[in-house]
Amino acid sequence: MQTQMLQSFPNRQWFYVKRPVGRVTGEHFDLRETELSGALAANEVVVKARYISVDPYMRIQQHERNTYDVPHPLGIVQRAGTVGQIVATNSDKFKDGDWVLGYNGWQMFAKCHASEVQKLDSDAAPVSTALGVLGMPGRTAWFGLMEAGRPRPGETVVVSGAAGAVGSLVAQFAKRAGCRVFGIAGGAAKCDFLVDKLHLDGALDYKKYQSREALSAEIVRLTNGVDIYFDNVGGMITDAVIPNIKLRARVIICGAISQYDGGLDEPDLGPRFLQHLLFQRATIQGILARDYTQRMDEMTKIVAPWVRNKEIVFEETIVDGFEKLPECLNSLFEGKNLGKLLVRV
Amino acid sequence: MQTQMLQSFPNRQWFYVKRPVGRVTGEHFDLRETELSGALAANEVVVKARYISVDPYMRIQQHERNTYDVPHPLGIVQRAGTVGQIVATNSDKFKDGDWVLGYNGWQMFAKCHASEVQKLDSDAAPVSTALGVLGMPGRTAWFGLMEAGRPRPGETVVVSGAAGAVGSLVAQFAKRAGCRVFGIAGGAAKCDFLVDKLHLDGALDYKKYQSREALSAEIVRLTNGVDIYFDNVGGMITDAVIPNIKLRARVIICGAISQYDGGLDEPDLGPRFLQHLLFQRATIQGILARDYTQRMDEMTKIVAPWVRNKEIVFEETIVDGFEKLPECLNSLFEGKNLGKLLVRV
Repeated sequence: MQTQMLQSFPNRQWFYVKRPVGRVTGEHFDLRETELSGALAANEVVVKARYISVDPYMRIQQHERNTYDVPHPLGIVQRAGTVGQIVATNSDKFKDGDWVLGYNGWQMFAKCHASEVQKLDSDAAPVSTALGVLGMPGRTAWFGLMEAGRPRPGETVVVSGAAGAVGSLVAQFAKRAGCRVFGIAGGAAKCDFLVDKLHLDGALDYKKYQSREALSAEIVRLTNGVDIYFDNVGGMITDAVIPNIKLRARVIICGAISQYDGGLDEPDLGPRFLQHLLFQRATIQGILARDYTQRMDEMTKIVAPWVRNKEIVFEETIVDGFEKLPECLNSLFEGKNLGKLLVRV
Repeated sequence: MQTQMLQSFPNRQWFYVKRPVGRVTGEHFDLRETELSGALAANEVVVKARYISVDPYMRIQQHERNTYDVPHPLGIVQRAGTVGQIVATNSDKFKDGDWVLGYNGWQMFAKCHASEVQKLDSDAAPVSTALGVLGMPGRTAWFGLMEAGRPRPGETVVVSGAAGAVGSLVAQFAKRAGCRVFGIAGGAAKCDFLVDKLHLDGALDYKKYQSREALSAEIVRLTNGVDIYFDNVGGMITDAVIPNIKLRARVIICGAISQYDGGLDEPDLGPRFLQHLLFQRATIQGILARDYTQRMDEMTKIVAPWVRNKEIVFEETIVDGFEKLPECLNSLFEGKNLGKLLVRV
């Protein structure tokens, strides 16, 4: 299926050019207009981006030291998950117009080997869900809760960042597992979303509490103790939850977004709390989506029907405009969005 | 076997009378001379103490708030594990002179039901080991390492408080499991003990390092990364180890002795480090000996022959004198002793 092999594509690319110290701003990225040749080797395809992902992990990779990866190199296109369509193909596996999931980064066009992209069925679910509930964030939520959390009916689950891409799914998965679920989020609108749309048992607006002690007291009042704490944020919220864990509690560290812009290199100080793990014989476990990539079938079998039947809320915040990518990445750390943040291009 | 039922015993008892805020001193305990009647109900025995235990957990129970227990009540004899001999019996199970393990507290004589004490075979192992390597500290070390740590040959294990009652056993169990083992302890004498007597792969005197950064750098130099960290001490030592954990590391929280005299009520501040759990998909787990009480047979089957054949070092620091009990408890927090601290009475 060779198509238009000598065509070229007017590309736009966001290069990552400077390591941020605190928040991400325009100076850390450089928008370049380039030309992508349409000359294709065997099994190559060209993908035109339609949805480009911004995710908190990107900020971790911008740290100078090794984190869970070596640092994202400077001077290359910002890496990112993308959903797009095939616009040129030298592979039997794809035809023009096919929707695909890839890891093509912040660019309008990408040339890659057919094995690097995965075909999406746009009838089965909205294609954007491949970057959300049926993709990396969904996998994080599902395996993080199910494998590290081991929820049991009747248990009490607290989720921080509960209105976010991962947290909103964890909260719903935990409800389906028969748990009492409480979400922590910033602001009344998010808390209303948690209670009214996700039907959680309660929500807590952390911005209303100035101290760990006050937040902790409210967590006790609301939950009467925590069996599973799914943590996306770290910092003061986590400090407030940990003293309220119950016997044999499981704490899942999925993220520490409050610490990403600076705190990973120069750690904040917080109260020591490991003694609570001793008292309660509890566990804290860090998890990453990548460890479960080979097990997506397990999750898809269960969650895809929920998505198809609209039995689960998978909120998306969609921003239009390729040029908005850096500011969208930054907005993740300002807690402005509900659900999965995507840039439509 | 009714013996001397109308005899009475001139008892000495240490009553716990005041909650300490920092270190334990004389004012927190009251030594009383009382008379214990020898009148025995069916199946009762009188035990004369010979070895009385002082353990770090006692200081945890002195906190005003719930920890893993409700606080130790004021105005009663300090609870403690004891090894003693039957001096009066109204039970078929025991005869005068039998050695028994009990939980009779800081007193010279105790009357209890025969079911509350456990007969010891003084030929099989020194009776004092029932309070050490073959008792609670040994159980903590064995199940903490084997169950929570899951050591694999070739892995790198770091033990804090490595010259202590639990740590010195963990270190040896880990060597037997085929691991590279490094001990952290305070002072050259303890470090020599770790290398010369326990044959560890290295020892680190934490007192030589003034900052977390310096200690951390030395841990990296020595170990090149940590698969299992068995933590008895918490505080700065733990802060220094955590950033050096390897992928899928297991951290076992057995104690946090650096925090016991004050830090449990009013937590110290330390650097936040949960992101390292995320990066490494690592686990922190709190463990307590009591959770494995019903599985002592598993451990005894393996460890008792090592004790009998002197294949394992079970160092004891023995202090003579019932009146020394409070100061001995306090000395645990000054890091003065090697191995298990016992008071012989």
